[in-house]
Amino acid sequence: MNLTPSPFAPDRFPQLPVVSGVRASTGSRGFYARSGHSRDDVFLFAFDDGTSCAGVFTQSGTASADVDWCRQALAAGGGTARALVANSGNSNAFTGTFGAQKNAATVTAMTKSLGVPEHACFLAATGVIGEPLADPNYVGEIIPALADTLAAPDWEACARAFMTTDTFPKGAGQSIDLAGVPVAFAGIAKGSGMIAPNMATMLAYIFTDAAITPALLDALIRDITGRTFNSVTVDGDTSTSDTFMVFATGKSGMTPITSDDDPRLAVFAEALETVAMRLALQLVEDGEGASKIITIGVTGASTDASAKRVACAVANSPLVKTALAASDANWGRIVMAVGKAMEPIDKDAMTIHFGDHLVAEGGARALGYNESTASAICAKDRLSIAIDLAVGTGMSRVVTCDLTHAYIDINGAYRT
Amino acid sequence: MNLTPSPFAPDRFPQLPVVSGVRASTGSRGFYARSGHSRDDVFLFAFDDGTSCAGVFTQSGTASADVDWCRQALAAGGGTARALVANSGNSNAFTGTFGAQKNAATVTAMTKSLGVPEHACFLAATGVIGEPLADPNYVGEIIPALADTLAAPDWEACARAFMTTDTFPKGAGQSIDLAGVPVAFAGIAKGSGMIAPNMATMLAYIFTDAAITPALLDALIRDITGRTFNSVTVDGDTSTSDTFMVFATGKSGMTPITSDDDPRLAVFAEALETVAMRLALQLVEDGEGASKIITIGVTGASTDASAKRVACAVANSPLVKTALAASDANWGRIVMAVGKAMEPIDKDAMTIHFGDHLVAEGGARALGYNESTASAICAKDRLSIAIDLAVGTGMSRVVTCDLTHAYIDINGAYRT
Repeated sequence: MNLTPSPFAPDRFPQLPVVSGVRASTGSRGFYARSGHSRDDVFLFAFDDGTSCAGVFTQSGTASADVDWCRQALAAGGGTARALVANSGNSNAFTGTFGAQKNAATVTAMTKSLGVPEHACFLAATGVIGEPLADPNYVGEIIPALADTLAAPDWEACARAFMTTDTFPKGAGQSIDLAGVPVAFAGIAKGSGMIAPNMATMLAYIFTDAAITPALLDALIRDITGRTFNSVTVDGDTSTSDTFMVFATGKSGMTPITSDDDPRLAVFAEALETVAMRLALQLVEDGEGASKIITIGVTGASTDASAKRVACAVANSPLVKTALAASDANWGRIVMAVGKAMEPIDKDAMTIHFGDHLVAEGGARALGYNESTASAICAKDRLSIAIDLAVGTGMSRVVTCDLTHAYIDINGAYRT
Repeated sequence: MNLTPSPFAPDRFPQLPVVSGVRASTGSRGFYARSGHSRDDVFLFAFDDGTSCAGVFTQSGTASADVDWCRQALAAGGGTARALVANSGNSNAFTGTFGAQKNAATVTAMTKSLGVPEHACFLAATGVIGEPLADPNYVGEIIPALADTLAAPDWEACARAFMTTDTFPKGAGQSIDLAGVPVAFAGIAKGSGMIAPNMATMLAYIFTDAAITPALLDALIRDITGRTFNSVTVDGDTSTSDTFMVFATGKSGMTPITSDDDPRLAVFAEALETVAMRLALQLVEDGEGASKIITIGVTGASTDASAKRVACAVANSPLVKTALAASDANWGRIVMAVGKAMEPIDKDAMTIHFGDHLVAEGGARALGYNESTASAICAKDRLSIAIDLAVGTGMSRVVTCDLTHAYIDINGAYRT
C-alpha cells in the first residue's frame, strides 16, 4: 500500500539533541519484504548503567505479548532499563504461547549481546494482530548485528523503523537548563490509526539524560499521559500494543531528583510534558486520512473526567467527523454528541463556539449565528470547537482529526 | 441529495394488516421544497377512544422538544392515546423555547381538529438539529386538513412521510390468533444514520388492535427494546429524537389483558417483538452507505450487559467496519475491539468464528484457520461473527452494517 503523505507532515524531521547515555541502531528483518519494500523495521536502544525508566501501557483486555513482558519486567526490575527493541510489521498480539516464546528468544539475544539483565530489557511490536511469526527467534536473530552497530542515535532512522501506516516519522525534543545543568530530551512515536484515548497511547518513547528515580518518573508519566497521549484520538479504536515509556540515563551530570519536594521536578515535568504533547499531536496530524485537525475543548463540566467523556464523544462521533471533513458547520451534530455522552449538562445554559464564533446558547442556535462565518471556520485545516456545559469547573481538551474517504481506503487495504 | 437505494431495500413495501381503531393521513408541509422535492413530510394518526400506549425515548442529554412533550404527555395522561403527529425535515431539537411553542401550537391544533385531550396527543420530529422553524404554528397549520382526510392507513405513505436519509420506507406487521381472536399488528419506522444502541431507537411505531393496559404495555416495550431497536447500530451516534411507541386500540374484540398472569401476554409479547425486530433490522439494512449486514453474537460473557458492551465495541469499531467493507478477514481487529471494551474475558479460552469457520482460539489464530475460507465469508453481503468470551453465560446479539465511502458522502452533504 502506497500512502499519500499527510498534509500535516512537517517539511523535515526535527533536530533532536544528543542524549548522553543512549545509543541506538536500526536494521531490516524483512517484515515489509513481501510488499516489495526494503526498509528498516527493527530498532535497538542501549542505555548506560543507572538508567531509570517508567511506562504506561494499553488498558486493552487483549494486550500484546510484548506489553505483558514490559509490565512484568518493570515490576521485576524496579524501573531500571538497559535495552529496548521494537519491530514493526507484526504486533505479536493474540499469538498465544508463541508470543511469549518470541519475547523470551528476543530477550535472551539482548542479554547475550549486551551483557545486561533480562528485566532491564524492554520490547514492543506493532503491525498486524494475530499473525504468528515464522519462528520465535525471528526478531532475536538480528540483535547481535544491531548490537555491533550501536552509536549515538539517528533519531529519524529510529522513528522510521517502527512506522506502519504512518506517513511521516514523528519526533520531538528539547534541551533545558535544570538548575544550571543542561538536560536533553528526545522522543519518538509512531501511530496513525487505532488511536484512541482511554489507553496509554501508541508506541512512544522519550529519552533524557536527566537523573531521576523510577518511582518519581512513574508518577510523572501517569499524570502526563492523561493530558497528552490519552487526549488524542483518530478513530476511537484502542490498540493492543499501546506503550509510552520514558528512559532517564542520568548522564547529564546533574545530581539525581529523588524527592517530590525537589524544585527541579516541576521544571523537568513541564519539559517532559511538552515533548510528550508534541509527539501526541503528531499522531493526530498523521491520523489515517486526516485532512483537518480539530481541537475539542470542554469546560464547565461537573468534573475533568466528565469533560473528557464529552470531548471524546464529540471527537469520536463519525457524524461530527464527516461533517467537518466536508467543511459543513453542522453544529447540531455537536449537540447530538454532547447529548449521547449522557454526562451532567445544563442544556439551556451550555454554549458552543466554532473558533471564536458563538453558534449555540440558550438551548438553541445563537442569535448572532452566521452560517458563512461558521462555514469559513470549518473550512480551515485546523480549527477549535469549544463547549461549555455550564454545570461546574471540570475541563478537558482532546485533539482529533476528521473522517475522510482515505481512512476507508487505508483500512480496507491494510493487510494486502 | 439524491441517495442510491440500499442494496438491502426490499422489492416492495410489505402488505400490512388492517388495524381496527387506527386512521391516518399524510401531507406536505414543504420541508423538502428547497431541495426541489415535492413529497409528504407530515403524518397524522388518530386512535379510537380506549387506546392504550407506551413509549421509550432517547436517553440523550439533548433530547428534542418533541421527546420532552411525549414523556410529559405519557405521565400526565396515564398511557392513553388519541393522536400522533410526526414530521420529517426538522428535528425540533435544541431549538430552545421555540421548541415548546411549536409543540403547544401543534397539540392545540390536534385537540381542536379531533376533539381529544392534549395529553392523548403525541409528537415526533426528525431532520436537521438546531434549526428553528419559520413560526411555531408551522406544523399545526396543516393539522385541520390532515384531520379531514383521515382514513384506514396507507402504511407505505405514512412510512415515506417521515423518511430523511432513508432510502426505503420501513414497515412490518402480522396477524395472530390470540385465544381465538384475530389480532393485527402494523409497524413503521425510519432511520438510516445517527443509529446506535444505548438509546430507545429512532422513530418507530407499532399499532395493534389488541386490548392491553398501558402498564403492561409499558413493561413489555421496555423489555423488548433492549433486544430489538437497542441492539442495532449504524454509526454509534445516538439521535436526539429516538422514539419507539406502541399503540393498542383494543378494537380487535378481545377481552383486555390486564394482568401479567394472563397466558395471552406471552403470545402478544412475542408477536410485538417479532414486528419490532423486523423494523429494527430494516434500520440497519438502510444504514447510511451499508453494503454488508453483520450480526455480532457474543456468548460466554459475565453478564448479558457485558456481552452487549463487547458486541457494541465490535459493531461500532471503524477499523472492523472498514475491513469488512473491503471483504478483508482481518479478525485481529475483532480481537482489538473485544480488548478495548475492557470487559471480563478469558483471553486464552475465548473463541471467534466468522460464520461457522473458527478463526481464533487458545489466545491465537486457530490451527485450522484458512484465509480463503474466512475471506469468502467476509465477501458475503450478510455475515455473522460469533465471539465466545469463555467466562460466563451472558449473551447478546447486535446487528450492524459496514462503513463505506457512501457514509462519508451522505454525511458530508446532509445539510446541503
